[in-house]
Amino acid sequence: MNNFIYDIPTKVYFGQGQIVHLPELIQTCGSRVLLVYGGGSVKKTGLYDTITHLLRENGIEWQELSGVQSNPKIGSVREGVRLVREHQLDCVLAVGGGSTLDCSKAICAGVPYAGDPWELVLDRTKVQACLPLITVLTMAATGSEMDNIAVISNPETKDKRGFSSYGMYPRFSILDPVYTFTVPRSQTAAGTADIMSHIMESYFDQVRGASVQDGLSEALLKTCIQSAPVALAHPDDYEARANLMWAASLAINGLNSLGKNRAWTCHPLEHVLSAYYDITHGVGLAILTPRWMKHVLNEQTVDVFARFALNVWGVDPQLDCWTAAQQGIERLSVFFASMGLPMTLREVEIDESRLEEMAEKAAETDFSRAFVPLTREDILQIYRACL
Amino acid sequence: MNNFIYDIPTKVYFGQGQIVHLPELIQTCGSRVLLVYGGGSVKKTGLYDTITHLLRENGIEWQELSGVQSNPKIGSVREGVRLVREHQLDCVLAVGGGSTLDCSKAICAGVPYAGDPWELVLDRTKVQACLPLITVLTMAATGSEMDNIAVISNPETKDKRGFSSYGMYPRFSILDPVYTFTVPRSQTAAGTADIMSHIMESYFDQVRGASVQDGLSEALLKTCIQSAPVALAHPDDYEARANLMWAASLAINGLNSLGKNRAWTCHPLEHVLSAYYDITHGVGLAILTPRWMKHVLNEQTVDVFARFALNVWGVDPQLDCWTAAQQGIERLSVFFASMGLPMTLREVEIDESRLEEMAEKAAETDFSRAFVPLTREDILQIYRACL
Repeated sequence: MNNFIYDIPTKVYFGQGQIVHLPELIQTCGSRVLLVYGGGSVKKTGLYDTITHLLRENGIEWQELSGVQSNPKIGSVREGVRLVREHQLDCVLAVGGGSTLDCSKAICAGVPYAGDPWELVLDRTKVQACLPLITVLTMAATGSEMDNIAVISNPETKDKRGFSSYGMYPRFSILDPVYTFTVPRSQTAAGTADIMSHIMESYFDQVRGASVQDGLSEALLKTCIQSAPVALAHPDDYEARANLMWAASLAINGLNSLGKNRAWTCHPLEHVLSAYYDITHGVGLAILTPRWMKHVLNEQTVDVFARFALNVWGVDPQLDCWTAAQQGIERLSVFFASMGLPMTLREVEIDESRLEEMAEKAAETDFSRAFVPLTREDILQIYRACL
Repeated sequence: MNNFIYDIPTKVYFGQGQIVHLPELIQTCGSRVLLVYGGGSVKKTGLYDTITHLLRENGIEWQELSGVQSNPKIGSVREGVRLVREHQLDCVLAVGGGSTLDCSKAICAGVPYAGDPWELVLDRTKVQACLPLITVLTMAATGSEMDNIAVISNPETKDKRGFSSYGMYPRFSILDPVYTFTVPRSQTAAGTADIMSHIMESYFDQVRGASVQDGLSEALLKTCIQSAPVALAHPDDYEARANLMWAASLAINGLNSLGKNRAWTCHPLEHVLSAYYDITHGVGLAILTPRWMKHVLNEQTVDVFARFALNVWGVDPQLDCWTAAQQGIERLSVFFASMGLPMTLREVEIDESRLEEMAEKAAETDFSRAFVPLTREDILQIYRACL
């Protein structure tokens, strides 16, 4: 286990009705907020009304940035920064899923920065002070509500990049599972794939022997495997939604990767796919992960895959490690498919034509500390196996 | 799952050599510290020299409170409060195990309080501001390094009570597994029993269905079961000591009990034993826990015990739930015994004579929200089964 520092500063208000705390939380940051949200779903569900009513009742002024898209674009960040400056706002209130939260984090980092916010995405060391961020989550997926990472896309350069800084942790996050009852089937499924990928990115790591962290990862994966089918069949099952929601936060708040290398693989491979084709992030991950696993299964990694198969999927403990490992990968693939996720690139309208170009782009990431280091050729083989 | 607030403010510096950060951490709180420690072990191991050298080198002045005993006494707390006031110190630096840390927390709470610190133990609502606390842990057991609880004994009234307040969270804790290499066999074993008890206090709870929390508890228990025997056989096995140390912190920092009732049973039963007989806390827990389990195993609880047996102890999944539950309890008992822990009250020189009096005392605790509510008669039966 590597040395580590545990420091997760976000305070989470979890459970039905916790929105009542919103005014007091905002008031610890100021009295003028930028309300950021995506499409109209927060209006349809009534959450927008609930929140603006609370703001009005408590004398909190706000400006709005709406229309944040999935794979949030640097243009929205720039617009948010402009609004905060123009209206001299004190903090950002993000209401939505990971895209809205990520866009809001980038706004919080961008406000005190004199240059263009895209420079911060390219070089996180330029991030200095950040505006306080409060989030109200409406979807269990990215874990953005409890980490300090934002992933922003730049359509002009076909870049989709994550950046992070300590100040970008939300100060408070309100997680009410009821808000996720209306998440459509396809997004619940893709969100679950995203959660599971975050967990697996930490689980499959060069550092072995971090027993607590790996055990937590297994518990989180089992929670997803148990809860997602229930949430898909019964979208308003509070307990299933609650377990998914909390699993999503713990999947990426850093707890299960303490003392590990934290050198991810499938996410950088997927970011290129969705930067080129704007596909749903979780779908890209579901397609890639089992193919990546098969590609990196070898003498050095088989024991980790066998443990995964045994502890997460409950395969027969009598199996030899190779058979167990293969069954674990197969079970993962079958699980993703059972949630109705597309499992090939062709299904999301990606063909052979740009795979080489994308592999070239993906190979710009440094994979040297990853579970298994990858070359451009490895990446191309994985992409091809996904067709 | 109940609603909850996640808020764990302690920053943890984990791993070999993290002590180098001590001066910078102290300097965020001031430049004058009360150095609190127990017996001579920190001097024997050289840790005292390391720390005082760092303090001296960095111009940090200190006063010392040494001789903090296990089951720390209110007298030490009073003495610490006096020293801080007399020398106008800025913060407390606790170096040791749970007793030293608990005593230090009570000092931090006691300094700004005008009355006698025992009044705070009896009524935690009286705790207001607290002095900042920094800890350097030398033993994996109580988890005091990452929670806001202090357990203090009053020999005059034969009381041993826990109290807690938000300000009592350590601001920083340095956890270097190397410092635990010299922990004697018996203390490693008793510490492991304490860790496991903390986990089980949360696991066996009226609230069901908290999948992430219960899965984390299982992972923590499995870590103890795997790591403790290695640490006992090879006291300087870094990985085993590291896993035990981190498990100890997560066992009680609140993460695995979020959304649960948090109404403990075995700890209050044990506190009476060690208040009357000054036995080692972890030993008392090891003796009590299996007997408590047998006492509360019934139609309503058998499924939880069966899950415990299956997921923690790996009993045969084909067993009926009653047989599985009983095997799980038996496995726990055998495990405690295998670490060389006394498993009867007589072995720690407690006889029948005061059991009734102690049961009466223990029944003052409100067990109505516990996993299974207990009466005075239940408690007496459990104590008797431990003889």
